[in-house]
Amino acid sequence: MATFTPQDYLMMSRAIKLAQGGIYTTAPNPNVGCVITRDDQIVGEGFHYRAGEPHAEVHALRMAGKLAEGATAYVTLEPCSHYGRTPPCAEGLIKAKVAKVICAMQDPNPQVSGRGINMLREAGIEVQVGLLEADAQALNPAFIKRMQTGMPFVQLKMAASLDGQTALANGQSQWITSAQARQDVQAFRAQSGAILSTSQTVIEDNASLNVRWDDLPLSIQAHYPAEELRQPVRVILDRQNQLSADLKLFQTAGDRLIVAPGGDVECLLNDDQQIDLRATFEMLAKQHNINHIWVEAGATLARSLMQQQLVDEVVLYQAPKLMGSDGRGLFGALGFQEMSQVIELDITELKQVGRDIRILAKPIYKEQ
Amino acid sequence: MATFTPQDYLMMSRAIKLAQGGIYTTAPNPNVGCVITRDDQIVGEGFHYRAGEPHAEVHALRMAGKLAEGATAYVTLEPCSHYGRTPPCAEGLIKAKVAKVICAMQDPNPQVSGRGINMLREAGIEVQVGLLEADAQALNPAFIKRMQTGMPFVQLKMAASLDGQTALANGQSQWITSAQARQDVQAFRAQSGAILSTSQTVIEDNASLNVRWDDLPLSIQAHYPAEELRQPVRVILDRQNQLSADLKLFQTAGDRLIVAPGGDVECLLNDDQQIDLRATFEMLAKQHNINHIWVEAGATLARSLMQQQLVDEVVLYQAPKLMGSDGRGLFGALGFQEMSQVIELDITELKQVGRDIRILAKPIYKEQ
Repeated sequence: MATFTPQDYLMMSRAIKLAQGGIYTTAPNPNVGCVITRDDQIVGEGFHYRAGEPHAEVHALRMAGKLAEGATAYVTLEPCSHYGRTPPCAEGLIKAKVAKVICAMQDPNPQVSGRGINMLREAGIEVQVGLLEADAQALNPAFIKRMQTGMPFVQLKMAASLDGQTALANGQSQWITSAQARQDVQAFRAQSGAILSTSQTVIEDNASLNVRWDDLPLSIQAHYPAEELRQPVRVILDRQNQLSADLKLFQTAGDRLIVAPGGDVECLLNDDQQIDLRATFEMLAKQHNINHIWVEAGATLARSLMQQQLVDEVVLYQAPKLMGSDGRGLFGALGFQEMSQVIELDITELKQVGRDIRILAKPIYKEQ
Repeated sequence: MATFTPQDYLMMSRAIKLAQGGIYTTAPNPNVGCVITRDDQIVGEGFHYRAGEPHAEVHALRMAGKLAEGATAYVTLEPCSHYGRTPPCAEGLIKAKVAKVICAMQDPNPQVSGRGINMLREAGIEVQVGLLEADAQALNPAFIKRMQTGMPFVQLKMAASLDGQTALANGQSQWITSAQARQDVQAFRAQSGAILSTSQTVIEDNASLNVRWDDLPLSIQAHYPAEELRQPVRVILDRQNQLSADLKLFQTAGDRLIVAPGGDVECLLNDDQQIDLRATFEMLAKQHNINHIWVEAGATLARSLMQQQLVDEVVLYQAPKLMGSDGRGLFGALGFQEMSQVIELDITELKQVGRDIRILAKPIYKEQ
């Protein structure tokens, strides 16, 4: 069992903090930070900013230069061992002659996990693993899920009044939540790999479903320049080919993947001739490297996703309003006959966003 | 304008802290704390514990004894000037020859406000008013409201799933919220002057609607001995005389006021031959000295109270559950046609209670 010094904790914390600099841009790559120290002084540091650009270790090694020799490198994720768009980082660390590498966690991909560490050890470098592992995992929940299960991490965004209504009986709903909550939604969109919705929502709201830099919270704009904006791909379920080219969806920045007969991607159907959500998500992960799906849609899709146990996290905005139960509910009818059947969740975060409430909750699925 | 020293703030904070010792027992009296200092040392302190027992100033003066002469008294509320169950506190302070009195706020009763202060000043005592006034007001929102308006302060307790359902379509609802939330409800009940419900709720749940010491949170039990327990009066609206003597309501500790034709109190009806809620509340304040009503009932009463703008604060427990919109909603149908009609609230507190969420919110009523 590796033992770590206070200095080690401090440096890995710094590496984790650095890694967060990439949360809007690295998809589908993971967020990774690296700090290189010599004689307890930082001589190099960096993080992965964008897929296709250098990894965290490369930035840190460039900054350290010759000082990397005999140094200790702190990396939030096991250095890669394969030749991709960049040479393997393990090789870079070996060439730079670092003496020691501390990784917060192994690579979550079972096919390569441990290879980078072995490569380093075979070159005579001391390697320790597991420092602040939980914090490092929290940098990349979606990347880790896809690597381990082949499925994307799915966040379901919902907005309702305090009494659970998303619209009045006549459909009116603008605006249930405040401008701050809508800015907050932009921040979630910006972190996702894909924004998923249905043709119904796209048509009803003539929704762009992209990230508008001007609508991001100021705190994000401050360290995320407009010219660096990464648009998640917009995935629209359009089983009945209802989308038309005049919609804003087709006139705004950001790629699209239309899931429709004859659409951009295969329209996988289930026995009921509806889009097979699980198979579609798996295909999006496998063929399009999508780690993280942010869902904004209506009650029908929300209900299907919950019933099929495909939601990893619910992000529920509640406006401090009472609309009456003659409005439209969050999930429509669920047909429960017993309290033991209701869907239970664990609340993981609770905060106020402007005048509204934001609840993060993880469904606790029952065995099916 | 009075100016206060850091010592003054410190001592008044202490008096406010002391006053909180009475929050379960003083009703219908206000919570009041008092600290007496001489040469910046505390020589006496106390708080009002129970109606009919000594006021805060009396406790503090007894403790100070002869040291009260020339001392400064910090009181969270203007000392009373009238002979009630105890002699006026202003007289006590004069007799003890204190040199200075600092009050956090004047008496909220417009008929006596300022009299105690004048009595002290006429006796040559220096009086300052307004130190930590907002904090002192927060000790007694219900007492202040009744004194200023003649109406009680009304808290409406509700419990629902995250999607706003209080029960399944078939009426099943045990238990939506957790044991911790139910303990929390006991703490609210214990602070109220009256617990209000309807015969329908009492009969359906065979509800006791009293305070059960064993069910109070441990943190409250620790400084509120079981033998000191004060039971709020249970006010039950029973327009159709449906209550029967075999109900738990009649077999459990605590007084009752049945609002029914031929009941304990006058059954005031409106033009629709329903109980006139506003007139009933006013009568409860006036004839029964009830400052603070805690409402636990179903959607029908909740809807009427909200529509008649009688609720001062909503206390909403949300369980992390999804029940579907085919369940029973919090307020039933409200018939809104426009978003501008919906009831808006301000959230004043948000926290987790066990696995549940507790939201405190104040309705923002529109002019009617």
